[in-house]
Amino acid sequence: MNTSGLQQRFLALRSNKGFELFVVGVILFSAIVVGAKTYDLPPTMLSVIAWLDHFITVIFLVEIIVRFLGEADKRNFFKSGWNIFDTIIVVASLVPVDESEMAFIGRLLRIFRVLRMVSIIPELRVLLNSLLKALPQLGYVMLLMFIIFYIYAAIGATLFAPINPELWGDISISLLTLFRVMTFEDWTDVMYETMTVYGLSWIYYLTFIFLTAFAFLNMVIGIVVSVIEKENAMEEAAHSTDPTMVDLHNEIKELKAMVAQMAQLNDPNKGQS
Amino acid sequence: MNTSGLQQRFLALRSNKGFELFVVGVILFSAIVVGAKTYDLPPTMLSVIAWLDHFITVIFLVEIIVRFLGEADKRNFFKSGWNIFDTIIVVASLVPVDESEMAFIGRLLRIFRVLRMVSIIPELRVLLNSLLKALPQLGYVMLLMFIIFYIYAAIGATLFAPINPELWGDISISLLTLFRVMTFEDWTDVMYETMTVYGLSWIYYLTFIFLTAFAFLNMVIGIVVSVIEKENAMEEAAHSTDPTMVDLHNEIKELKAMVAQMAQLNDPNKGQS
Amino acid sequence: MNTSGLQQRFLALRSNKGFELFVVGVILFSAIVVGAKTYDLPPTMLSVIAWLDHFITVIFLVEIIVRFLGEADKRNFFKSGWNIFDTIIVVASLVPVDESEMAFIGRLLRIFRVLRMVSIIPELRVLLNSLLKALPQLGYVMLLMFIIFYIYAAIGATLFAPINPELWGDISISLLTLFRVMTFEDWTDVMYETMTVYGLSWIYYLTFIFLTAFAFLNMVIGIVVSVIEKENAMEEAAHSTDPTMVDLHNEIKELKAMVAQMAQLNDPNKGQS
Amino acid sequence: MNTSGLQQRFLALRSNKGFELFVVGVILFSAIVVGAKTYDLPPTMLSVIAWLDHFITVIFLVEIIVRFLGEADKRNFFKSGWNIFDTIIVVASLVPVDESEMAFIGRLLRIFRVLRMVSIIPELRVLLNSLLKALPQLGYVMLLMFIIFYIYAAIGATLFAPINPELWGDISISLLTLFRVMTFEDWTDVMYETMTVYGLSWIYYLTFIFLTAFAFLNMVIGIVVSVIEKENAMEEAAHSTDPTMVDLHNEIKELKAMVAQMAQLNDPNKGQS
Repeated sequence: MNTSGLQQRFLALRSNKGFELFVVGVILFSAIVVGAKTYDLPPTMLSVIAWLDHFITVIFLVEIIVRFLGEADKRNFFKSGWNIFDTIIVVASLVPVDESEMAFIGRLLRIFRVLRMVSIIPELRVLLNSLLKALPQLGYVMLLMFIIFYIYAAIGATLFAPINPELWGDISISLLTLFRVMTFEDWTDVMYETMTVYGLSWIYYLTFIFLTAFAFLNMVIGIVVSVIEKENAMEEAAHSTDPTMVDLHNEIKELKAMVAQMAQLNDPNKGQS
Repeated sequence: MNTSGLQQRFLALRSNKGFELFVVGVILFSAIVVGAKTYDLPPTMLSVIAWLDHFITVIFLVEIIVRFLGEADKRNFFKSGWNIFDTIIVVASLVPVDESEMAFIGRLLRIFRVLRMVSIIPELRVLLNSLLKALPQLGYVMLLMFIIFYIYAAIGATLFAPINPELWGDISISLLTLFRVMTFEDWTDVMYETMTVYGLSWIYYLTFIFLTAFAFLNMVIGIVVSVIEKENAMEEAAHSTDPTMVDLHNEIKELKAMVAQMAQLNDPNKGQS
Repeated sequence: MNTSGLQQRFLALRSNKGFELFVVGVILFSAIVVGAKTYDLPPTMLSVIAWLDHFITVIFLVEIIVRFLGEADKRNFFKSGWNIFDTIIVVASLVPVDESEMAFIGRLLRIFRVLRMVSIIPELRVLLNSLLKALPQLGYVMLLMFIIFYIYAAIGATLFAPINPELWGDISISLLTLFRVMTFEDWTDVMYETMTVYGLSWIYYLTFIFLTAFAFLNMVIGIVVSVIEKENAMEEAAHSTDPTMVDLHNEIKELKAMVAQMAQLNDPNKGQS
Repeated sequence: MNTSGLQQRFLALRSNKGFELFVVGVILFSAIVVGAKTYDLPPTMLSVIAWLDHFITVIFLVEIIVRFLGEADKRNFFKSGWNIFDTIIVVASLVPVDESEMAFIGRLLRIFRVLRMVSIIPELRVLLNSLLKALPQLGYVMLLMFIIFYIYAAIGATLFAPINPELWGDISISLLTLFRVMTFEDWTDVMYETMTVYGLSWIYYLTFIFLTAFAFLNMVIGIVVSVIEKENAMEEAAHSTDPTMVDLHNEIKELKAMVAQMAQLNDPNKGQS
């Protein structure tokens, strides 16, 4: 009974709007601290920031504990990916790091704290989920695109490696070069270089650009169409309790049958017979 | 009565098509003057232009006064953002500026006069309003995009600052560099430089490009879908007085009830009973 | 009668599929000749090409005359913009040009002959017309975009002219530079240069990019929506002879009135009274 | 009977899910081998790879034979473009190539084996077919775009060839340069160079960019609209067995006729007459 009472109190705290705003404020503040650290700062400021870092870590720890204790069924807590993400970020921040080798990981962790903004604000969480949901739909288009990239990279690495090993040395470098060509970033420099050896290599670049642009276009159109379809489906669902044309048709048919039967009953000729 | 008569006359002048066209003409002329000032001109021309500047300022002042006096309820005048904008631009032009320090602000003010084109032509005003209305809708996507930018900028400033302080010196410079990467402007130069130290830093750039491109795509699709939805809603509203399927259904049901009742009345068996 | 007979014969020739294909063939051939002239050719080839040029001109002249004579009402001939275009191109080709000064115009004329492909193939004509029809719709967005460009160019020419007169010398050069910035072509070079003097000038570039990208996006969405609207209107028009919900509603109401009247007539109570 | 039994067994093998997965695995493995060959490898690895190449070729050969023997009507086998593609790739791999001249073709063939992924995975085959089906629809827009390119290339080669023969030497080089301008790749460098001779040549570039961007935009919109149309057509087809408004209208009309007839029969006045 005592534990349950405490849990209720933590749940109330967790759902408290003020508490949420306070946590958002702390995350924002941690983002500013992360940003501040990238500037050249006097030692006094650095020690202040180090202290603030600890302070933020403690607040985050308290917040996670509150949220964990506020959960009625503790097992549900770790069913949410966001809770796991938050816990890892906070717990990992607690591990003391010496300035030498692990310092970089410690810094990254503090940067990833900004991502907690997404886990706290529900609208951002919904947005990110809907973005992630759209990805698998595009799976096959992306596979096709990767096959195009892979084949062109293999051809490029086979033909152009002796011309410029920095751009075409092996298949992974070639994949990066082709991505660069796809973004149109100085792609003519890449092309003119290979054209001095293979005069017809413009065919390679132009077909690649056309194929990827076309596949990319299809991906975009695919997303647009699937979004519009979803919209239509939702609208249709909203009207799904309305009677359909088929319903109306059946009703009218029944009515006709009723009138026809009545007409037979009332037929004076029949009455006389 | 006298004031009201004057107000009516000013209202009539303000609504006069010729007056509006004259003001549009003066704005166009002020735009040409603004453009002319950017060329190297002989001193005679400069003094002519200075005189024209004063002339345009006076006309704009007169126009604002006419519009103000033409307003029945003076308090309504300053409820329109465009009226406030016009008044500030015109009044600020009246302040005499010496050639030394405030000259730049005076020049800017004269350039912003061209924006009065938007405040005068109703179609442009409507267009701009609809553009501004579309912005808040995208609020969360833009917040998400900023979080992505901020995290990548923090990582970039932490890792790459020693490699090239001009591109990655602190978080604000890194944000600008990332915007440059997003526009694909010489992004490979930025990448190849950091790859000499961190061989795997291409992962940083590619994930950034994918994330921002994907978020941007979603923003565009969001606008398209919301515009199409609005279209559909307007079309539906246009048909909203039409009877719905439900109405038809109910009518047919009532009709059936009537026929059923009639059939009962006419039933010869019942008549005989 | 004789003239009419001739006109009929020319009309038949003009409508002949073989004749059309022959003219398309000659245009294609003239395109190849135009392309061939850009290569370094031996004198023999050049004289052959000069002869071919005359030959093509004569065929085009004959074709225009056939089409003109085939027209029943000669005044209708010049009501089509394409006929006027064809006539100008052909007649202007007849004017002999000496090799010195007018040679360039003569060459251009021969290049524009390739455009006759559009005037001959009906599908291309329809396509171009629909493209041109879409333009005025976008009038106000383009005006707004021009105002944005003009204001930014005026500010740029005022502030940055001393930094780099080649990019910001006067308002027309600045407009070209801004178009370059909009296409993201080496825009950071332009920005970094002005940032050495005005440290905050990145605001100028970023706001410009956002404004133009946003206006451009709106233009694209405007076209998409108007195209979809047109589609919907066409589909609705195809169903416009179908009875509407209102029609059905009225029919059912009439039916109900009929049944109600019948019920009154048949009412046994009323019959007994 | 014996052959038919064998054919049945091969058909069963071919349709076996495990067999398909095995073939996909071999193709994936061949892709990895193709990629590995682009790296600098020790001689031992190279001989292993050569052996793996033979191994993959043999498996592909067996697979093609299985699929061919599994076909009931052998003539149908070569009616599928994918089967022909697979057979050519596999048979051509069997031809022994000496390391000198034909080696390149042999390498290309091994790269194209990766494309077999598309011929094996049905979803990719469907996707590619739908991409290819979308192309001819765009035929006329692409023809119009080519005409624009050709005319601009002819003008460019005529005017700018003496300025920079490497970019404008003849019409085919000019076409490549214009494609570069369309992708905004260092297009201002190209423009500034010609502007030193022809000050107004920016008109050439700007009109070209506007025309191609506009035509490209139209192409994209064309695809979007045609995809949406197809969606609508499919949805309409799904409801095509539903009664239409016209059907309902006719039913109600018939019903009215029945009631009217009944009313006439029941009319007491008529009965009295």
